[in-house]
Amino acid sequence: MEKITVLGAGSWGTALAIVLAENNHDCLLWSHRADQAIEITQNHTNKKYLPETTLPTNLRATSDLKEAIEHSQTIVLAVPTKGIREVCATINDYLSNPALIIHVSKGIEPDTFKRISEMIEEEISPSNLQEIVVLSGPSHAEEVVLQHPTTVTAACRDLTYAEKVQDLFMRSYFRVYSSSDVIGVEIGGALKNVIGLAAGVLAGLGYGDNAKAALITRGLTEITRLGDKMGANPRTFSGLSGIGDLIATCTSVHSRNWRAGNLLGKGYKLEQVLEEIGMVVEGVRTTKAAYQLSNHYHVPMPISTALYHVLFENEDPKTAVDSLMERSKKHEMEDLYEGHE
Amino acid sequence: MEKITVLGAGSWGTALAIVLAENNHDCLLWSHRADQAIEITQNHTNKKYLPETTLPTNLRATSDLKEAIEHSQTIVLAVPTKGIREVCATINDYLSNPALIIHVSKGIEPDTFKRISEMIEEEISPSNLQEIVVLSGPSHAEEVVLQHPTTVTAACRDLTYAEKVQDLFMRSYFRVYSSSDVIGVEIGGALKNVIGLAAGVLAGLGYGDNAKAALITRGLTEITRLGDKMGANPRTFSGLSGIGDLIATCTSVHSRNWRAGNLLGKGYKLEQVLEEIGMVVEGVRTTKAAYQLSNHYHVPMPISTALYHVLFENEDPKTAVDSLMERSKKHEMEDLYEGHE
Repeated sequence: MEKITVLGAGSWGTALAIVLAENNHDCLLWSHRADQAIEITQNHTNKKYLPETTLPTNLRATSDLKEAIEHSQTIVLAVPTKGIREVCATINDYLSNPALIIHVSKGIEPDTFKRISEMIEEEISPSNLQEIVVLSGPSHAEEVVLQHPTTVTAACRDLTYAEKVQDLFMRSYFRVYSSSDVIGVEIGGALKNVIGLAAGVLAGLGYGDNAKAALITRGLTEITRLGDKMGANPRTFSGLSGIGDLIATCTSVHSRNWRAGNLLGKGYKLEQVLEEIGMVVEGVRTTKAAYQLSNHYHVPMPISTALYHVLFENEDPKTAVDSLMERSKKHEMEDLYEGHE
Repeated sequence: MEKITVLGAGSWGTALAIVLAENNHDCLLWSHRADQAIEITQNHTNKKYLPETTLPTNLRATSDLKEAIEHSQTIVLAVPTKGIREVCATINDYLSNPALIIHVSKGIEPDTFKRISEMIEEEISPSNLQEIVVLSGPSHAEEVVLQHPTTVTAACRDLTYAEKVQDLFMRSYFRVYSSSDVIGVEIGGALKNVIGLAAGVLAGLGYGDNAKAALITRGLTEITRLGDKMGANPRTFSGLSGIGDLIATCTSVHSRNWRAGNLLGKGYKLEQVLEEIGMVVEGVRTTKAAYQLSNHYHVPMPISTALYHVLFENEDPKTAVDSLMERSKKHEMEDLYEGHE
């Protein structure tokens, strides 16, 4: 039994806290809303995010971030990507011992090109940081709380800590694989949102399974190509945090990115789409980052580039798909390994 | 413009013949049924397999196999896998010049472990054979005839012939990538049916997207591991004929393999399932071959092995899934490259 803090009581943070509590860890969940913290501790529910779920009685919550940080030196960071820097800067003030940070966020900052773990390292001082582990993979929270079989990857440059996280979370329905490729796991998690958006566009245009399978496969190719240049192990993209998460995102109609793409494919403009969805669509930001990265590293990323043109330069989605299909003949692997595209 | 023969007027053979005819090739389609050949040539329809489609007027059909073989030295072999040896033995008698054989079949013979191209080579004498190209990828015929974007791989040990096939088929909605890895493309095409069956089982058990994404990802891992031992290029499995076709098979409810698995997951026994489906379920045969290959090459294939136990040794599907989830902790890549499983 270990003391563990989970920051963020959205659906994913809560689902992970449930797994940890079921594994008999002393898990304290932080919510920024006091009423939600009370609901979790007293009623054992989190109606807003997991309406059907009863939480374990040993799972407690607080809305006091200082109390949450003082609870343990093992911190699961499950806050929205855009809040990472702010939350990390605050907890840095509360930390008095080096903490193990386990983050579960997905994204790449446009302009700075920073991955999540790099943002964390910029906000938390070295003396407060033991290590950073990223936990990622195909895992809808709604299915985890139903105890449906779920698999994820825990990655850390020091494999010892990835294996520690594996031990903390492993459960009959929740299988954790270890990896030492933080860069690959983070890039896969971020870039899948771009392809998820594009999958929605294809569906919005009325296309079917052939087009979707082509998109996911060729999307994987361009993510791998970029990851290779950024220092990832290309094999990581064939794993759970790469192709696995890509499949879950592109074949589920529940993803916000997919829904946004679907509206684009049906002819809505980006501003209308964002208004309609009414929440952050991470894939839009990441498409911008992907486009910038493609240029910065001189890596051909035809799908991300086409989506960038649709999102930010008003290109017609159907025209963008047609251009992708009509590029010159290719060897299936040439562009991955030689950059001939 | 080239003369081309397509053997087999099922949905896929007909869809490919349409692409070729639209590319202005002189394409003759062979059906084993005289009435179907007349329907195709005179009415420009193939109601049984593609009820909604009007065929190009320049596409003709015959039920005379000898006439079909004499029409050209470029032969697309689109007959069911179990008929490959018989058809090849017959056309060997009619060939008088070396032919380029383009096959589109998927499977591995149990007991002999022969791939499709190896069966073809055993039935057609070397003097009658120019080369064999395999054409494979995520491609439901029903979507190709709607001109939805579709991508496939053409592979031949001599890349010149793969590129020739690429030239024959390339069309605005039908994009062909070339490859020299025949072994990898054939193994991917065969083994995806095993994972497709297993995907149906998971759905039949009521599991969702997390489990499906895990199955496809870990299924890809074990297919890659086997392919590596059998002489394939591991990278091929990250391509259209590998992960691409796997995704299309596992996420479409139209696949016979998926439907068979779904019934198994719901508690039907194999004999009941085969009776219910009423047609050949290629994945059942291939699961047997995969299980044998796993033992023969000493390659751990936990998913194929679990499915073999369900199909042939009456194991309960839920128990089989639980055992897969509860195996010892793994590094995500260890088993692929070191066989530690």
